[in-house]
Amino acid sequence: MIPVVSAPTERAVNLADVARLAGVSPATASRALGGHPHVAAATRERVLRIADELSYVVSPDASRLAGGRTGRVAALVPHLSRWYFAALVDGLAGALRAAGLDLLLHPVGDADDRVEYFRRLPARRAVDAIVTVAFPVDDAERERLEGLDVTVVAVGGQVGSHPFVTIDDEAAGRQAVDHLIHLGHSRIAMIETLDPEQRGDQPAGRRLAYERALADAGHPLDPDLDCTVEWGGEEGADAMARLLGLRHPPTAVYAHSDEVALGAVRTLRRAGLRIPADVSVIGIDDDPLAALTDLTTVHQPVREQGTLAGHMVATALSGSDPGPGIVLPTRLVVRGSTAPPRGLR
Amino acid sequence: MIPVVSAPTERAVNLADVARLAGVSPATASRALGGHPHVAAATRERVLRIADELSYVVSPDASRLAGGRTGRVAALVPHLSRWYFAALVDGLAGALRAAGLDLLLHPVGDADDRVEYFRRLPARRAVDAIVTVAFPVDDAERERLEGLDVTVVAVGGQVGSHPFVTIDDEAAGRQAVDHLIHLGHSRIAMIETLDPEQRGDQPAGRRLAYERALADAGHPLDPDLDCTVEWGGEEGADAMARLLGLRHPPTAVYAHSDEVALGAVRTLRRAGLRIPADVSVIGIDDDPLAALTDLTTVHQPVREQGTLAGHMVATALSGSDPGPGIVLPTRLVVRGSTAPPRGLR
Repeated sequence: MIPVVSAPTERAVNLADVARLAGVSPATASRALGGHPHVAAATRERVLRIADELSYVVSPDASRLAGGRTGRVAALVPHLSRWYFAALVDGLAGALRAAGLDLLLHPVGDADDRVEYFRRLPARRAVDAIVTVAFPVDDAERERLEGLDVTVVAVGGQVGSHPFVTIDDEAAGRQAVDHLIHLGHSRIAMIETLDPEQRGDQPAGRRLAYERALADAGHPLDPDLDCTVEWGGEEGADAMARLLGLRHPPTAVYAHSDEVALGAVRTLRRAGLRIPADVSVIGIDDDPLAALTDLTTVHQPVREQGTLAGHMVATALSGSDPGPGIVLPTRLVVRGSTAPPRGLR
Repeated sequence: MIPVVSAPTERAVNLADVARLAGVSPATASRALGGHPHVAAATRERVLRIADELSYVVSPDASRLAGGRTGRVAALVPHLSRWYFAALVDGLAGALRAAGLDLLLHPVGDADDRVEYFRRLPARRAVDAIVTVAFPVDDAERERLEGLDVTVVAVGGQVGSHPFVTIDDEAAGRQAVDHLIHLGHSRIAMIETLDPEQRGDQPAGRRLAYERALADAGHPLDPDLDCTVEWGGEEGADAMARLLGLRHPPTAVYAHSDEVALGAVRTLRRAGLRIPADVSVIGIDDDPLAALTDLTTVHQPVREQGTLAGHMVATALSGSDPGPGIVLPTRLVVRGSTAPPRGLR
């Protein structure tokens, strides 16, 4: 379980505190404090009032380049062409640009890239900070990064005790699985994904959510319903086909991500099954294509995570404390792919 | 019409020539010449034989950093969180990394970013090359870029007479509209998109394709069927709703991109119409979600365009001629969203 930033007690007030008390996202709080457009006047006033009450001060240095440094920040990105990674980087790039910092893209998509990257790392010293973009590093790699003596920030995950912005994967998974359980499903399959190019030290929050939600509801865990595949829509489609071949197929499917869920949807449609009348499907992410395909999912604020990570980098480079980390909330988005199982309607 | 690279007559042989004669994509040719894995042995041998016959020499400098330069390349990217842009950048980043070059991401998504970017451009001089990623620059902006005296390469479009990698948008559009015409449709709507943040100097190839294909088939152009909206799935959905409100709705829809097409699909489904039985829909791009949603579309090689642009940059920085440009072919991918109109079945 990822620690959630709580009340500002023993430490300096940070942006997350202001946002939480103002009842807005940290991204909105940041925009309000920064005087950006597209923030409602009432919201801006509330954020400024809270910031004032908490004596929160935007560091004057946080928005410009600290002197004597390179002005460059490297982002380690495994899979830029997937929406989630691209949206994280998009938010990050915008925030860094606003702070006068340039973003270097360091692709580390496959195992070879990764080994090569860390081998050559000392030569990469010409940056002020490194941001790991949903990229789990192992202890040896973390020590390599730390040996560079630059700021390290993690987005979409955590790296040691470095500042981070992420979501609580287990909480997101619980929102998804609990929704299916509340609808009356008990035979719920999980299509979990693993990235074969990455080490196995990824947070298993989405899997834990499945196991715990079923246990809490008193439903048995059926190993036949627990699929683990590589990430991707085609892989989700194959997993769904395997599930349909079971003697007792599931009445609902919980997929690791929206793209995997859409693969499952394609298989169901090809089999002539109706969604959600015959089978319910839920994803996680709220990728823009989820809205287009009427997929029920759990929304996570992706671009905002990147933006906040950029703010943290700028804050740290200005010599201020970016705070320990931010866990942004997720929320269930009910669309047309989930409904009670047939017997209950 | 974009000039297609033709036979190597008066100029040095380049990668595109080798690829064309070997009957493979330039990306495959590059991988074969570079000794990368994932190239079939027979393909590698054919590419090497052709390269040998043409006396094509991979510049030894093309794969490492030219001395005395920054080793950095900037990519101007308008909309990184859209698959097309992200996949272009992903390919570009991989090729640059292989050449020992770092990629700086310069987001220029909205009009303000753009103005600010070109205002500050002289301060951006610390790069060896600038790649415009599907980013149409106007003449004044082009002159600013050229004033930096760095290599300029365009991907997903063209900039003046600088080297480029792109597709032929009109040819891609013809593949889509001609498919609908061949199926027997004559009442074909177009959902064209414009990016309000970009100037109006984008190539109108996809629109021209529509007008010319209908004219060639002898079908009248009905202004009611010609929708222009902002880019996006929701915008495609709205446009489709408008088309359904017509006295004589279309029997087929040609959308500017897959995401726009999927918005139209959602509206049709919500209206209780069957695809393709009642209405056919075709997109352009072959975004991975097109396969997942069984959408007929026109495939364009996106990541490959980025990879080739990266090779061109490396070639130019090594002092060799990257050639005038490459136009990669597109192809129709028939899936489940197109069929003959009802009367013809």
